[in-house]
Amino acid sequence: MCANKLTMPIPEYLSEILESVRANTAGEVANYIPELKKADPNPLAIAICTVDGRIYSAGDDEVEFTMQSISKPFAYALALQECGADQVFDTVAVEPSGEAFNELSLDGSNRPMNPMINAGAIAINQLINGSDSSVEDRVEKIRKYFSELAGRELMIDRRLTESELVGADRNLSIAHMLRNYGVIDDDAHDAVLSYTLQCAIKITVRDLAVMTATLAAGGVQPITGKKLIDTKVCRLTLSVMASAGMYNEAGQWLSTVGIPAKSGVAGGLIGILPGQLGISTFSPRLNAQGNSVRGVEIFKTLSDDMGLHLMSTEPVAVHAVRTITEKDGVTTIRLQGAMNFSAGENFLHEIQQHQFEGEMVVLDLSRVITLHPMAMRMIKEGLKRIRDAGFKVAIVDPDNVLPNFTFSDGTLCAQLASERDL
Amino acid sequence: MCANKLTMPIPEYLSEILESVRANTAGEVANYIPELKKADPNPLAIAICTVDGRIYSAGDDEVEFTMQSISKPFAYALALQECGADQVFDTVAVEPSGEAFNELSLDGSNRPMNPMINAGAIAINQLINGSDSSVEDRVEKIRKYFSELAGRELMIDRRLTESELVGADRNLSIAHMLRNYGVIDDDAHDAVLSYTLQCAIKITVRDLAVMTATLAAGGVQPITGKKLIDTKVCRLTLSVMASAGMYNEAGQWLSTVGIPAKSGVAGGLIGILPGQLGISTFSPRLNAQGNSVRGVEIFKTLSDDMGLHLMSTEPVAVHAVRTITEKDGVTTIRLQGAMNFSAGENFLHEIQQHQFEGEMVVLDLSRVITLHPMAMRMIKEGLKRIRDAGFKVAIVDPDNVLPNFTFSDGTLCAQLASERDL
Amino acid sequence: MCANKLTMPIPEYLSEILESVRANTAGEVANYIPELKKADPNPLAIAICTVDGRIYSAGDDEVEFTMQSISKPFAYALALQECGADQVFDTVAVEPSGEAFNELSLDGSNRPMNPMINAGAIAINQLINGSDSSVEDRVEKIRKYFSELAGRELMIDRRLTESELVGADRNLSIAHMLRNYGVIDDDAHDAVLSYTLQCAIKITVRDLAVMTATLAAGGVQPITGKKLIDTKVCRLTLSVMASAGMYNEAGQWLSTVGIPAKSGVAGGLIGILPGQLGISTFSPRLNAQGNSVRGVEIFKTLSDDMGLHLMSTEPVAVHAVRTITEKDGVTTIRLQGAMNFSAGENFLHEIQQHQFEGEMVVLDLSRVITLHPMAMRMIKEGLKRIRDAGFKVAIVDPDNVLPNFTFSDGTLCAQLASERDL
Amino acid sequence: MCANKLTMPIPEYLSEILESVRANTAGEVANYIPELKKADPNPLAIAICTVDGRIYSAGDDEVEFTMQSISKPFAYALALQECGADQVFDTVAVEPSGEAFNELSLDGSNRPMNPMINAGAIAINQLINGSDSSVEDRVEKIRKYFSELAGRELMIDRRLTESELVGADRNLSIAHMLRNYGVIDDDAHDAVLSYTLQCAIKITVRDLAVMTATLAAGGVQPITGKKLIDTKVCRLTLSVMASAGMYNEAGQWLSTVGIPAKSGVAGGLIGILPGQLGISTFSPRLNAQGNSVRGVEIFKTLSDDMGLHLMSTEPVAVHAVRTITEKDGVTTIRLQGAMNFSAGENFLHEIQQHQFEGEMVVLDLSRVITLHPMAMRMIKEGLKRIRDAGFKVAIVDPDNVLPNFTFSDGTLCAQLASERDL
Repeated sequence: MCANKLTMPIPEYLSEILESVRANTAGEVANYIPELKKADPNPLAIAICTVDGRIYSAGDDEVEFTMQSISKPFAYALALQECGADQVFDTVAVEPSGEAFNELSLDGSNRPMNPMINAGAIAINQLINGSDSSVEDRVEKIRKYFSELAGRELMIDRRLTESELVGADRNLSIAHMLRNYGVIDDDAHDAVLSYTLQCAIKITVRDLAVMTATLAAGGVQPITGKKLIDTKVCRLTLSVMASAGMYNEAGQWLSTVGIPAKSGVAGGLIGILPGQLGISTFSPRLNAQGNSVRGVEIFKTLSDDMGLHLMSTEPVAVHAVRTITEKDGVTTIRLQGAMNFSAGENFLHEIQQHQFEGEMVVLDLSRVITLHPMAMRMIKEGLKRIRDAGFKVAIVDPDNVLPNFTFSDGTLCAQLASERDL
Repeated sequence: MCANKLTMPIPEYLSEILESVRANTAGEVANYIPELKKADPNPLAIAICTVDGRIYSAGDDEVEFTMQSISKPFAYALALQECGADQVFDTVAVEPSGEAFNELSLDGSNRPMNPMINAGAIAINQLINGSDSSVEDRVEKIRKYFSELAGRELMIDRRLTESELVGADRNLSIAHMLRNYGVIDDDAHDAVLSYTLQCAIKITVRDLAVMTATLAAGGVQPITGKKLIDTKVCRLTLSVMASAGMYNEAGQWLSTVGIPAKSGVAGGLIGILPGQLGISTFSPRLNAQGNSVRGVEIFKTLSDDMGLHLMSTEPVAVHAVRTITEKDGVTTIRLQGAMNFSAGENFLHEIQQHQFEGEMVVLDLSRVITLHPMAMRMIKEGLKRIRDAGFKVAIVDPDNVLPNFTFSDGTLCAQLASERDL
Repeated sequence: MCANKLTMPIPEYLSEILESVRANTAGEVANYIPELKKADPNPLAIAICTVDGRIYSAGDDEVEFTMQSISKPFAYALALQECGADQVFDTVAVEPSGEAFNELSLDGSNRPMNPMINAGAIAINQLINGSDSSVEDRVEKIRKYFSELAGRELMIDRRLTESELVGADRNLSIAHMLRNYGVIDDDAHDAVLSYTLQCAIKITVRDLAVMTATLAAGGVQPITGKKLIDTKVCRLTLSVMASAGMYNEAGQWLSTVGIPAKSGVAGGLIGILPGQLGISTFSPRLNAQGNSVRGVEIFKTLSDDMGLHLMSTEPVAVHAVRTITEKDGVTTIRLQGAMNFSAGENFLHEIQQHQFEGEMVVLDLSRVITLHPMAMRMIKEGLKRIRDAGFKVAIVDPDNVLPNFTFSDGTLCAQLASERDL
Repeated sequence: MCANKLTMPIPEYLSEILESVRANTAGEVANYIPELKKADPNPLAIAICTVDGRIYSAGDDEVEFTMQSISKPFAYALALQECGADQVFDTVAVEPSGEAFNELSLDGSNRPMNPMINAGAIAINQLINGSDSSVEDRVEKIRKYFSELAGRELMIDRRLTESELVGADRNLSIAHMLRNYGVIDDDAHDAVLSYTLQCAIKITVRDLAVMTATLAAGGVQPITGKKLIDTKVCRLTLSVMASAGMYNEAGQWLSTVGIPAKSGVAGGLIGILPGQLGISTFSPRLNAQGNSVRGVEIFKTLSDDMGLHLMSTEPVAVHAVRTITEKDGVTTIRLQGAMNFSAGENFLHEIQQHQFEGEMVVLDLSRVITLHPMAMRMIKEGLKRIRDAGFKVAIVDPDNVLPNFTFSDGTLCAQLASERDL
């Protein structure tokens, strides 16, 4: 039997979901931008990308549309990357605003409440490439960065931008108020132009799924394998999406869908399951809150069907200790997977339960994917206690997941090239 | 070597953390309740409980203190359990209030903004045991429920209650306003008495760690193994803790600490890592926001050290497929752990890559802990496709994690008692 | 022809006005108090009282109803009278709240925004008779004071009070919050009882017209002639009625009706033309803002018809100088009316224009009603300049409106018992 | 004795007031406009103008400064004059905003809260000369209108305008938001330019006193005698100054000073005593609320000293009936002054008290200045009742203050050219 005959049922499942919402024609396409108003309201698409880079999609997955507010979290990540968290936090707060997407919400320090509302997003855009950057240089930097995240060259819809700028009074009002409070320095019209061009970058649901999966994967673009975002930046970006991504429905979204998300008025919607998946949908009709009607419906279904809720309390299966075997007086403990605190606790618990015999204990780390410093400390401490109990100990670490082999008392642990080296 | 010689380093680590914050004597004990004002400001304690029921603690872990606002999420869970989500949502919303803990925040429908502020908590308290319950019956129900969650009989500090009631003007103001808007029916003084008694239930950090771990474990009390809370109720409770648990610092807490949490003015603080851990600390001095100063510091350290941030994008190690082995024409696929969507996707991906040979394929589910419906569907679909490709298929499911053996086309899959039955 | 045959057309005019609005049955009687809900919605009455004590009325002018919020300005006047402006301002601010009548509006110093909202009115009530007064003593003091203002013994509707107290959750909520912020010290229930009894004092439109005319007349009860309120207290009371008396329609009321006013939920409405009139209406059906529908309509008509608008720019006829006559070398200047700055300016202007002849100038003050200190200074200065120009001067002041006869240079002006004394 | 020797003591009094506040150098000149920042902080001036056109001034009464926000009430009057109250009310509300002078305050209908905040003032400016007017045409219209009010050709400080436009981000923010809500149609930059030019019109305190006196005089410029503003427009303008002229101190200002007022950041301050006076002061140092420090102090002193408080309850002296004399069977009733409702009531009361004898009654209106329709009705009705009691009646009305001589029953009253005609 050849592999390609075993077709994946996931795209079929995604198609089923699309069909289940296709009849819902409630809502209206965004009407405050003339060009958006002309948009075909019917396209419907979904895409999922795993952190391993496998993409599944269904529907109109090759139709391009503009990112609009979906650009906000990615620009936020870029600003954090360029300027560091301190400067970004000094400029824009991270509290839920409880307000609609384009209100002017400043906190007591005259900072925009968060980077997911327009006031915050315009301020974030201005941080990128330095406040003295030309509009074109800044936008080009953003376009290139987004292109790297998507894994292909993205284009800007400049006709839409022109259309948007005609009715950009809200954003101009916000930009002038930001200037007034010294949050931004640039000319207000340039600031709005710069932000509007960022919003007009065109993508498909497949692009968005990959970009979003990059955030889910701690910044590693899952197709190209390039590390594009720091892990901490990913965490901060997801946090603000979770608390403020869905405008004044943040709490309800967290209760019912339970994943960090962001929507755009062109009809896009993205959601992230950290460490697992990036998801995106496209359907241009919007509800009163400015979110895609069918997109929201799909996300609710996905969350229920697929158990994606972040607050899901399904016990995370911790199989840190793959096996403990004994042969010829050598006990081999094989660890596997991503070693975090819970994995470390699992390891310590397992060795505490185990009746060690013979003279030597070998810890095989060759199947460990990532090793959190806390878990590393726990593993070393456990191994040291085995040693202190009278056993010889050694480590097999072919991929160098362990930065050094020094125990907490300064002594060194022996290494083996492989288990077979014994 | 005997197991009890291998002492666990975790309590030592917890002690270290306590020592690292002990010198911080900033903040003041709550001063608005005379009895709380008299509290010793010095105790310092921490406890962690895994979903498997292993408890680690350090410091003054046997000192009792009152739950205060920490009772809110557990009472919310009890109300959801008793009345269902619909009635609870009709009474109290789930949006962040952006306000201090005792403000009167009603939304456009005159519902308190969320159950973590006093207005919401008083309304939630009134839902428990029916609105026509006597105060004593309601409070006894809550006390018993909390006792079951803690795994021991908890007591109410009635002297503190009396002290609190003397200065309960804010809560009385809130209760009268709730009555005015028809949110509660009971006498305002009874409502405040009932809520105040709920707040005065006495616990230790170890109790709190176990109670919190019950939420983390999807409602299964990890020590007694009793299923006390529905999975969905856990999810809703954690969601509202994440979005509104830390008052007007919700967004900042989510960015920097990143776990659902709740604090109480007696100095307690709890945090939850869904599916993994319940954590609690105790230190009575409070910051301006009414949160334990050293508690917040500990949680920040823990989150950094232990990698507990919910938005952590460390790839979740998915080892759904433990092994695929072939022997005598029979290919055995062994699944393990909690099977969610990602695990299902991992299974489908693995069988697509695999070159099946021989005549029969056996799927061994004996190491599967939980099986999400979506994963079940994916597993069945994958197995059916192997069958459709010409193999005989059979399932080993000794723990009946699979509710039925019917494929999507109505045909039945064969079962084996164990792999050895072949 | 005998005087009593010349009937006054004013009551006829008032009757006409009542008929013009009688068909308007829009609105509902207040429904939040069971007893008020039972009220007959049909009565319709109006009364006007001049500062000289002439009362005109029409319609159901003998029907009693409760004062409700109309008690607020009179209680405010009593508190100002008892405690002085400083203590009252420390307790309650005077800014418009822009909110409905029973909201809890505290300013940055935790003071109620103004004494016309319930929070402010409850705080004001507590100031009366000292904060340690019993409820009965305080209410009796208020009842007696209001009775003196009305010129007859007023009674309290205690059955209504009981009915109100049953549903007094809003006021209890407010009272507890005031206690919480230290604005009031008394038990919250006592505070609400005390305020509710104040609101339940029963009056007719004729009573209200007299009470209101007392405020209009600078505190002199126009029937009994007793000075019951300081002039400054009247001014402060009218000011706060003008800026905050009509809830969230303060600005619109000032533009369209233009007189200080206050309404009560039992259907009463009072308005004041300072120095001229007190007006009151009664019609129990209320609009959405809680103001009497027909009452508001009547006031709009009255304001237009009668030219009562405070911002009316009709030139105030200043005939301060009644006549200047010359006989036998003596020029007599006769002043009349209330001498304010404008009157003083008129006097100075007239004497500047006049060609004085002869040797002596007599200033006759016998027709002067009141003499403002500024006008007094201007008159003396004018007279002194006449003297300095070479004339003998003397004053006729039979009613002693001038406290002394010393010029600004210390010299004394001669007095005459009457003009005839020359 | 010649008239010019009797110098007026009023300017001396004004000088005294200036000296009493001169030492107060608290506050700072406006610093948000570079050109204003350079202003000399020391000038100090005051002017008063009566509705009869007599001007008194002291201090630096010839120093020119820009109107700034003082232009708001006059532009409001012009817009009301041009567009009518309905269109103006549809565009801008009249409720106190409780906010600082340059906040963006829109009500539930997206109307600026009132015309005294910048949002309202920019919207009002746009109504003048039609929304399709060029900036220059609109500003020229305003400049000419203001010049007519002042009685001399006023100029615009265009250098200051340029300086203001550089830092006009707040106003630009407001203008864009107004455009966004459809409150204004014009280009935002043009709207701000137009408003800024209006603010930059240069005046002295004497100009302001005359302009303000025009409002006080019901729209008649007191020097030129031209009727420039409708009486109703004056009333609406004064109303909004009273309720919203002093920013977030409206209530306190009404309590303590008690006259409609408006301040400008260049240091000007105007106040109006309807029907009597216009007052203006100039002193550039501002308090935290943006009001002239010494200006506020002067107004408080003036209000106390001169008894200007609108809520002053000094009985308005009503001497409507100058004399009633009888000679040769003819009783002559001589009325005088401005006949309003109170005057009418006084007339009716007097004739009711009078014992008429003889055969004829003559009513002499030759000393009546203005005759309110209500008073007219009362006078006619009184006269008709005298006639109905059996007397012949006639009217002397040389100035035609009575538009017709028809009684309420359709009969005609006789007229005499003068009393002497009998």
